[in-house]
Amino acid sequence: MATPLRLGIAGLGTVGAGVVKIIQGHADLLQMRTGREITISAVSARSRSQDRGVDLSGYDWEDDPVALAQRDDVDVFVELMGGEDGPAKAATEAALAAGKDVVTANKAMLAIHGQALAEAAEAKDLCLRYEAAVAGGIPVIKALTEGLAGNQIDRVMGVMNGTCNYMLTRMQDAGLDYQTVFAECEELGYLEADPTLDVGGIDAGHKLAILAAIAFGAKVNFAGMEIEGIESITIDDIEQAADMGYRIKLLGVAQMTGRGLETRMSPCLVPDNSPLGQLEAATNMVVLEGDQVGTVVMRGAGAGEGPTASAVMSDIVDLARGTRLTTFGVPASELKDVRPARSATPAPYYLRMELMDKPGALAKISAVLGDAGISIDRMRQYGHEAATAPVLIVTHKATRTALDEALGAMDTTGVLASKPVAIRIENV
Amino acid sequence: MATPLRLGIAGLGTVGAGVVKIIQGHADLLQMRTGREITISAVSARSRSQDRGVDLSGYDWEDDPVALAQRDDVDVFVELMGGEDGPAKAATEAALAAGKDVVTANKAMLAIHGQALAEAAEAKDLCLRYEAAVAGGIPVIKALTEGLAGNQIDRVMGVMNGTCNYMLTRMQDAGLDYQTVFAECEELGYLEADPTLDVGGIDAGHKLAILAAIAFGAKVNFAGMEIEGIESITIDDIEQAADMGYRIKLLGVAQMTGRGLETRMSPCLVPDNSPLGQLEAATNMVVLEGDQVGTVVMRGAGAGEGPTASAVMSDIVDLARGTRLTTFGVPASELKDVRPARSATPAPYYLRMELMDKPGALAKISAVLGDAGISIDRMRQYGHEAATAPVLIVTHKATRTALDEALGAMDTTGVLASKPVAIRIENV
Repeated sequence: MATPLRLGIAGLGTVGAGVVKIIQGHADLLQMRTGREITISAVSARSRSQDRGVDLSGYDWEDDPVALAQRDDVDVFVELMGGEDGPAKAATEAALAAGKDVVTANKAMLAIHGQALAEAAEAKDLCLRYEAAVAGGIPVIKALTEGLAGNQIDRVMGVMNGTCNYMLTRMQDAGLDYQTVFAECEELGYLEADPTLDVGGIDAGHKLAILAAIAFGAKVNFAGMEIEGIESITIDDIEQAADMGYRIKLLGVAQMTGRGLETRMSPCLVPDNSPLGQLEAATNMVVLEGDQVGTVVMRGAGAGEGPTASAVMSDIVDLARGTRLTTFGVPASELKDVRPARSATPAPYYLRMELMDKPGALAKISAVLGDAGISIDRMRQYGHEAATAPVLIVTHKATRTALDEALGAMDTTGVLASKPVAIRIENV
Repeated sequence: MATPLRLGIAGLGTVGAGVVKIIQGHADLLQMRTGREITISAVSARSRSQDRGVDLSGYDWEDDPVALAQRDDVDVFVELMGGEDGPAKAATEAALAAGKDVVTANKAMLAIHGQALAEAAEAKDLCLRYEAAVAGGIPVIKALTEGLAGNQIDRVMGVMNGTCNYMLTRMQDAGLDYQTVFAECEELGYLEADPTLDVGGIDAGHKLAILAAIAFGAKVNFAGMEIEGIESITIDDIEQAADMGYRIKLLGVAQMTGRGLETRMSPCLVPDNSPLGQLEAATNMVVLEGDQVGTVVMRGAGAGEGPTASAVMSDIVDLARGTRLTTFGVPASELKDVRPARSATPAPYYLRMELMDKPGALAKISAVLGDAGISIDRMRQYGHEAATAPVLIVTHKATRTALDEALGAMDTTGVLASKPVAIRIENV
C-alpha cells in the first residue's frame, strides 16, 4: 500500500469546503483511482467558528496559513484563499520553500506572480498546479498543456467570466439596461467585492494571461494585455447587435503574430448562431486552435463550489498518481519574454454614435472613415425626434490603429453628440 | 539531458504519417515540452514502397510489426494499424510482453480486448494509452480519466462517428434520401471498407464502450451494449423531426442505473437548438456529466490526419514526461464486472408509421399505446392520396420495454402498412 497523500488546505470558502466534501465523500473512489489514500492533515481559514456545512473535526487547525504550508505532515499545500498578494502569496512561497507541491485556484496570483512562483517551484522540482484558476470545472489547463501538447497553438479564445456573461445575457433576455442588471447582480452577490474585477474584464484577463503563457511558451504577462470591460455596453448595443444577428460577449483572444503576442479581453460581437454566441448565463467556453487538431471547444460551469472543487481535485489526483509537470508546459526558465503587441489583426467593427442633427453630419463621418482607409459595410441612421440622431455603422475589416485614428478625427468634426462606442466583430 | 524516448510506429496510413510529420516538424517544441528528444527507431507498414509524403529514410524498416514491437531500441510501441484482431493485437501483445509501453488509436481492439490488454500491461507496470481511439482530436480520455477524476460520473453522451453525422446533416441540408447520401459517401471514401462499422453504429459503439469503462470503473463490455445504426432513418424522419424542432443524431448514452449499466448507441431526436443538435458535418461532441462539475461539453474534429495524430502525440508526450497511468483510470484488476442493463430510463419517443386507410385505424393504434401505459403527446395524420396514411406520433415518456410491447401489439392490429419507426427523443 502506497503512503497517503497528505494535504494542508488554506481557505475554506465555497471552493475549500467543496474540496473537503469531495475528499470525504469520494474517499473510496479517489483511493481506487490514485492507488493511495488522500488525507487532510490540517486546515486554515479566517474564522474558525464559522459553520461551513462540513465536518472539520478530524483535521488540525492553523490560524496562520504560512505555518500550515510548512507543516511536516503536509505533502501538498492547497491554496484556496485568493488574492494576488497577501497571505495567499506568502503561504505559497512558504510551501515551495519548505519543499511542498502547491495546488491553487488563484488566477490573480498566477497572472501577476506566475513566473516567479514557477521558477521557485521548478528550482526544487516541485509542482505548482492550478486547473481551477481558469474556467472553473472545464479541464482546460490539462487540455492545453497535455492534450494538445503535439500542436503549435495558433489561437486561444474564451468567454471566462460567468458574471459578465450572465449580465450580458440578462440584459438581452429582459431588455434591461446595464445599471439595472449591475444592481441586480450586486444584490444577488454575483459580483466580486471589487466589481471592477468582473465588469472591468480583469478576472477574465487574468485567466487569458495564464492560457496565453501555456499556449505560446511565454512568460505570463498580465500587464501586457489589452483589457476593456463591459461597463460601456448599453441595451441599445445589445439590441442593435441582435438585429444584425450578433450577440455581445466579453471575449478573450490570444494569438502570436509577427509583431509579438496579442492578448486582449474585450466585448465583441459574435454571430448569434455560433457556439460562443449561444453561450448563456454563467457558463464558460474556451476555444483552442492548434495546427494539428484544428479547433477544440470546451464548455462548462466557470464557477461554483462543485465545478471549481472538481478542478482542484484533478490537480490533487494528478499529484497522488505521481504525475509531475512543469508549471506552464515547458520549464519556467525556458519561457520566453515575448513582446506584447497591440492587436493589429484587422476585424470588422461595430460603431454606434449620436450625431448632431446638422446637414452633412453623416457625410463628415463617412469621410473621416474613408481617410483612415476604413470602408463601410452597412450604415443605418435611425428615425429620431431629439436633436441628435443615432447612427450605426458596421465597417469592413480594419486595424484597431486605423480605427483609433478615425475615432480621433471624428472628435474634431464637431458633429458628434457623444463619444462613439466601437466594438470589434469576431466572426468565430 | 534526459535520454530520448524511442518509438516504433506500426501502421503508416493517414494517422501514422501524421504522427511522423509532427515528430519531425515539431521536434524542438516537443523537446521543450517534454524535456527530452522524441525519436523514431523503426517503422512498419504493409507496403514499403508507397509514398506517404513523409521522409522515412532515417528509420529502420520492419516488415513484421511484431518484430518492431520487440526491438531493443523501442521504448514505446505505437500501434496505428487498426483492426480488433490480427497484426494489431499480436503486435500489441508482443510489445507488452517485451516490456514496452503502448500507444494505440485502435478503438475496436480496446472495445473487444481492452480488459485482457490492460491486465497484461498493468501486470508489468506498463502503460496502454489510447487518446486517439475516441473522438479523434478531442482530449476526452484525458478529461474523463484525469480532469474529472474527483467526480462520480453520472452520464456520458456523445456523437462520435463523423461519417454518420455527416450523412444525417447532408440528408437534412440537401433533402436527400439515405441511399443517395450513402452512395455519395462511398464514392468520397468516407465509409469504412465494411460500411456497417459506420452506419451500423459499431465504430461509435466501440468508442462509447471505452468511455463507459472509464466513467463507471467497469470492465469494457462492447457485447453488452444496445446498438442501432442509422440505416432505417429516412428523409421523412429527418423532415418531420425538423418540423418539431429536432435533429436526428447517432447518439451514444452510458449511465449507471440500479439495474446495471446502460450503454446504448442509437439514432435519437435532440432539440435543434441544443449543442448536440447543432453539431454539423463530421464534427464530434462528447458530453460528460459529473456529480461535482455538472456538465462539460467538448467539441472537435473526430477524425482526420492532424486531429488523430494530435491525440496520439498527447499520449506520447505524457509518456515522455514520465506520466504513468492505469489503462482505464483504476487498476484493471479492480474494474468491475457490471451487469449490462437494457435501457429503462423512460423517454419520449417519436413514432412514424403508415396506416391502412381503414375506419378506426388510428383509434386502434391509440388503444394499443394506451394499453401499454403510453400516453400520446402529439399526433399528426398527414393528407394522403395513396391507400395508406402517414401518421406521426410523439409519446410522453415511456420505457423501451413498454414501447416494444406496444409495437408488438400494433403488429396484430392489422392496420399497419409497414413496420413503424421508433426513435428515442433525448431532450439534452
